[in-house]
Amino acid sequence: MNNKIEVIDNGNVCSPKGFTSGSIFSGIKSPGQDKKDIGIIFSEKPCVSAGTFTQNSIVSPSVSWTRNIINSENIQAIVANSGCANTAVGIQGLKDAEEMAKITSKKLNININSIAVASTGIIGVELPMALMRKYIPKIELSSNGGHGFANSILTTDKRTKEIAFSIKIHNKEVKVGGVAKGSGMIHPNMATMLSFITTDVDIEKVSLQKIIKSAVKKSFNQISVDGDQSTNDTVLIIANGLANNNKLNDLSSEETKLFSTAVQKVCTFLAKEIAKDGEGNNRLIETEIIGAKTKNDALLASRYVISSNLVKTAVYGRDPNWGRIIMAIGASQIDLIESKIDIFVNDIQIVAEGVAISYNHQSIVIAMGEEVIRFKINLNIGNKSAKAWGSELTEEYVIFNSAYTT
Amino acid sequence: MNNKIEVIDNGNVCSPKGFTSGSIFSGIKSPGQDKKDIGIIFSEKPCVSAGTFTQNSIVSPSVSWTRNIINSENIQAIVANSGCANTAVGIQGLKDAEEMAKITSKKLNININSIAVASTGIIGVELPMALMRKYIPKIELSSNGGHGFANSILTTDKRTKEIAFSIKIHNKEVKVGGVAKGSGMIHPNMATMLSFITTDVDIEKVSLQKIIKSAVKKSFNQISVDGDQSTNDTVLIIANGLANNNKLNDLSSEETKLFSTAVQKVCTFLAKEIAKDGEGNNRLIETEIIGAKTKNDALLASRYVISSNLVKTAVYGRDPNWGRIIMAIGASQIDLIESKIDIFVNDIQIVAEGVAISYNHQSIVIAMGEEVIRFKINLNIGNKSAKAWGSELTEEYVIFNSAYTT
Repeated sequence: MNNKIEVIDNGNVCSPKGFTSGSIFSGIKSPGQDKKDIGIIFSEKPCVSAGTFTQNSIVSPSVSWTRNIINSENIQAIVANSGCANTAVGIQGLKDAEEMAKITSKKLNININSIAVASTGIIGVELPMALMRKYIPKIELSSNGGHGFANSILTTDKRTKEIAFSIKIHNKEVKVGGVAKGSGMIHPNMATMLSFITTDVDIEKVSLQKIIKSAVKKSFNQISVDGDQSTNDTVLIIANGLANNNKLNDLSSEETKLFSTAVQKVCTFLAKEIAKDGEGNNRLIETEIIGAKTKNDALLASRYVISSNLVKTAVYGRDPNWGRIIMAIGASQIDLIESKIDIFVNDIQIVAEGVAISYNHQSIVIAMGEEVIRFKINLNIGNKSAKAWGSELTEEYVIFNSAYTT
Repeated sequence: MNNKIEVIDNGNVCSPKGFTSGSIFSGIKSPGQDKKDIGIIFSEKPCVSAGTFTQNSIVSPSVSWTRNIINSENIQAIVANSGCANTAVGIQGLKDAEEMAKITSKKLNININSIAVASTGIIGVELPMALMRKYIPKIELSSNGGHGFANSILTTDKRTKEIAFSIKIHNKEVKVGGVAKGSGMIHPNMATMLSFITTDVDIEKVSLQKIIKSAVKKSFNQISVDGDQSTNDTVLIIANGLANNNKLNDLSSEETKLFSTAVQKVCTFLAKEIAKDGEGNNRLIETEIIGAKTKNDALLASRYVISSNLVKTAVYGRDPNWGRIIMAIGASQIDLIESKIDIFVNDIQIVAEGVAISYNHQSIVIAMGEEVIRFKINLNIGNKSAKAWGSELTEEYVIFNSAYTT
């Protein structure tokens, strides 16, 4: 069996068979070059679908709408808007989410219950439905529309986030495409993250649900702190089966594993792009915990490191302050033995057996000036590992976020 | 019974009977006006004592030393240093903590096991024991030494934090004094917090333990996020009994309750002072959750609000971005009903039943420019309440923390 996973040039959500996309600028956001604020992803065939949603106690009615239909219905389209989160607006929010689906269902001539809805942007402001009514019908769908859609869901992101991979299953080409919008925040705490993944694989629903859940756990959840989720966070995957492979229904088969790895690669790529694109920064902090007792320990401790304001500011200052790293790991309260901890910055060891070694300070300062700063921490008490991604904390972040709505 | 709790002018840890203090500059920190870096609190009589310590998996040997003796022994002195955390230095750390106690025991001519040790400062550097050996013997104790001690435990704090209250128990005057050093960090995540509370009350140990645990939960723990504790966090209370009241041993008695309230007041005052004195800021954010279903819900949700970088930056920008507040509350995943939430900023209501009301924007901007910004959130689903305190997030914070060790 061919296990190659190939990246598709300029790949996006329209790369898999049978998907088209379109987007438009309606005026929900303030105008600007190439700006779009409503987008549609459409599949010519209804899709098996699965999703993961925010755990926040306050949930956008757009999320409620989609969460309600995703389990029972076959999704055929996703309509998303940026500029307004449709959150904390009372009962009007659910009416508006439903109307957004209805307008789209009329345009596409499909059932309203086959349309997923997503919103991102300012909280506490009602969706401008007049703009929805006027502009959704004008959206033109095409197989070249993927990049435009990627644009239409951005808020404070500086660039689009999109990718697609190709694999072979039962000798058929299967494609997986994905798009995301960033938290836009250096600490993703309470910022909205949206991601939509399209694929032409033929797969049964239960397997798809398990695959997306596992992929999200190791990717999008590793740029965020458990529980610190926005009111609108949504990851959807929709599979239309047009690749014509023998239907995947066994998670332990080689074919399903290959597909699962491809989905994981899409999610990890998009999650890292989100982390890199924090407000006021362009650099990526990657923390890898190895030698942990359990997978969850590794996931948790790596997340603690990339979530620490003190680690984030140390990276910004090119300061190899490993005390902050060791404190963040300890704060996660995982199992560890202090005298066994090794720490590396971009492969240069700075701590051995819990104690600083006399490393060349200047070489670490240079390493911490790179585009990607990799902290590797070996706990040396097990064989589990995990990664997490975050970004530095800069003055621009503060300036930017102290003047967001006013 | 007289339930008055009176603040003592210029009160500090030497206000209660039988306590003296002293401090000195030894050179662990870089020199500066009035700078001290080693301090001692001494009681002429051994004390009933209790403490709470960091939950971090990495613990300073100074904390280990003190945690080991606090339960079994009567404490008679506390020796503390700033400038060096005595953390992540291998087995040398425990030897040094023990020697620090030993030097102090010789100076004071008391048992080494009656001496609590605390350290705060840079991680990963060994305690300069030569300075300890030279300077601890030179420390002069006096009843005027409380303020100097408060100085000796500071790291990045801009000012000392000290207070004392007086109450009447069984017609005897009982005093409670306290001192703290701040996290120094806007987000207390992984910064060291030390607090020492002295009292001349006569009390049995079990009651004292329960009183300090409860007080810390509602004060110091409400300026921090659960689990995000430094390697050195320590709160100690020591009671020498010299007030000569009838020994307190019943938590439900009016007298014990009064004493407990006084301890709570000391802790709350010191916790707020810490929150106010974050790096790069001088303003205090107070979040009060009322109408919650449980006390823990109120404690948790209020802590989420003051821990949110987005709320902190919004306050810095005088931006009444209540969407960030409502998201932070939801992120805590407590029980709530969105359509019942009311939000007030310094008593001006901005959200009613989960939806923004058309408040006067300018008056809120002015309120958010005050020294203390009070967010009150009524969940309207119960009768429990709690407060938490934090500070704004400023550019100075980033500048300061990006250049801490280098």
